[in-house]
Amino acid sequence: MQKEDALRRRDFFAALSGVAIAGAALAGAEGALAAPVDPGSSKVRFGRHALTIVDLTHRLTREFNFDPAHPRIAMESVDGSGVKAGMKMHRLSLIEHTGTHIDAPNHFGVGYKNLGDIPLSDLVVPLAVIDIAAKAAASPNAELEPADIERWERRHGRLPDGCCVAMHSGADPFADMARTRREGRFASTGFSVDAAAMLMQHRQVKGIAVDAMTLDAGPNVPNYPVHQNWLRSGRWGIEGITNLKATPAVGALLVVGAAPIAEATGMPVRALALF
Amino acid sequence: MQKEDALRRRDFFAALSGVAIAGAALAGAEGALAAPVDPGSSKVRFGRHALTIVDLTHRLTREFNFDPAHPRIAMESVDGSGVKAGMKMHRLSLIEHTGTHIDAPNHFGVGYKNLGDIPLSDLVVPLAVIDIAAKAAASPNAELEPADIERWERRHGRLPDGCCVAMHSGADPFADMARTRREGRFASTGFSVDAAAMLMQHRQVKGIAVDAMTLDAGPNVPNYPVHQNWLRSGRWGIEGITNLKATPAVGALLVVGAAPIAEATGMPVRALALF
Repeated sequence: MQKEDALRRRDFFAALSGVAIAGAALAGAEGALAAPVDPGSSKVRFGRHALTIVDLTHRLTREFNFDPAHPRIAMESVDGSGVKAGMKMHRLSLIEHTGTHIDAPNHFGVGYKNLGDIPLSDLVVPLAVIDIAAKAAASPNAELEPADIERWERRHGRLPDGCCVAMHSGADPFADMARTRREGRFASTGFSVDAAAMLMQHRQVKGIAVDAMTLDAGPNVPNYPVHQNWLRSGRWGIEGITNLKATPAVGALLVVGAAPIAEATGMPVRALALF
Repeated sequence: MQKEDALRRRDFFAALSGVAIAGAALAGAEGALAAPVDPGSSKVRFGRHALTIVDLTHRLTREFNFDPAHPRIAMESVDGSGVKAGMKMHRLSLIEHTGTHIDAPNHFGVGYKNLGDIPLSDLVVPLAVIDIAAKAAASPNAELEPADIERWERRHGRLPDGCCVAMHSGADPFADMARTRREGRFASTGFSVDAAAMLMQHRQVKGIAVDAMTLDAGPNVPNYPVHQNWLRSGRWGIEGITNLKATPAVGALLVVGAAPIAEATGMPVRALALF
């Protein structure tokens, strides 16, 4: 491999993993496909109602360590005060942006709102799911564009105020990683700059979510214009959401179970839909 | 201070912090009181309904580093792939059992269910709040006992199947820590062994939650019989839940937003009540 090619490959993997790579050897991906803890839905009683709940979260395993030289998640055992009673626990070493995770506004700049300051009322919101799987099957860099929002609204009505707009492109983090390695070039679906601008300027939207691992589509990595514009507006994003096929296009309530960690720029979450 | 006293103090603080202490100097607590991100409630539209949502979660700050020699949470900046675009992120170093957090069954033994294997249907459950604040005001080691459960049931009916039983003792982690330092002896409210046994054997309960930082009351630390019995039965616990005053005794749905991290024995969560 030429030196220039090697550098370019490092950039691709750095972009994908979100961590600068120091030139260490890149081990192969494990090849396992991502999966939510429960790929289906279940029911819970709520007063006289039986609610359907859907887990929108990938089980966070070490498979998400796409770059073994810079593991995104690792754990070491530590002794607890009750070690004689059988207590076990770990100290986690965790990159905030791993697995199904939230991006807080301060992910793109000091001084923007951090994860610990996002009120619960911004994290329990109506969910609107926009399906772009057909064009994503044709192009791994397909974007959710204003025309997709307009098409959705012709069918389902205007986006609910205060909602989260989720892109369902059919992306799978491990299949995407395997393709990137195979093709030597990073590709990903994501929101287009114009779609993000439309949602910020002409709709009332609290967050966006993608089943890909980046809000920005492949060609916009690593300049990240959607991340910059969207997060700096004070809104949040979710990357690596999954199981959107099991949720309705409109009518579900999204709960983003993000631990309110002060100063954090993001965190793995439990995301779920109720309807 | 006598050597024996010093050792005893170390044991107390080790028990409280959940991490063995290597004899380093113990710095003073910050004195700030714990607080949820939003101490009140807010409303969210859900179809034709307006749901009330209550945040049951402490904002996770470095104030939870009760033992400065063994910080439970720390973060360092790492370069992201989009550093030129302004990307900021951290690598967290985190003890799993910090702030408002869940205890998974494997917290008390290898081979029990880990956090990544708890299905969502076990984390979205009816919430029953049992108030023992009056007796906790009289004794910092007050326990939630079978008689408290029976009293609750006489007023509200039988505990709902599949529920979480939350102990509201009025505990505040920082006030408790300050008292422990002041008195040189660890004290905490918690579930009694008999109450945990009653819930396991005679009711259908998925989890228990406490506003204290331990499921076991003070005299049972660090032998942890409630932890041992309850968690090894495959059930979960939450420590450091808060804001229970803002929730009804019965009728709310609890959502435990715990990221499904494979192998983890626990994790800070976003816990919330909907009603």
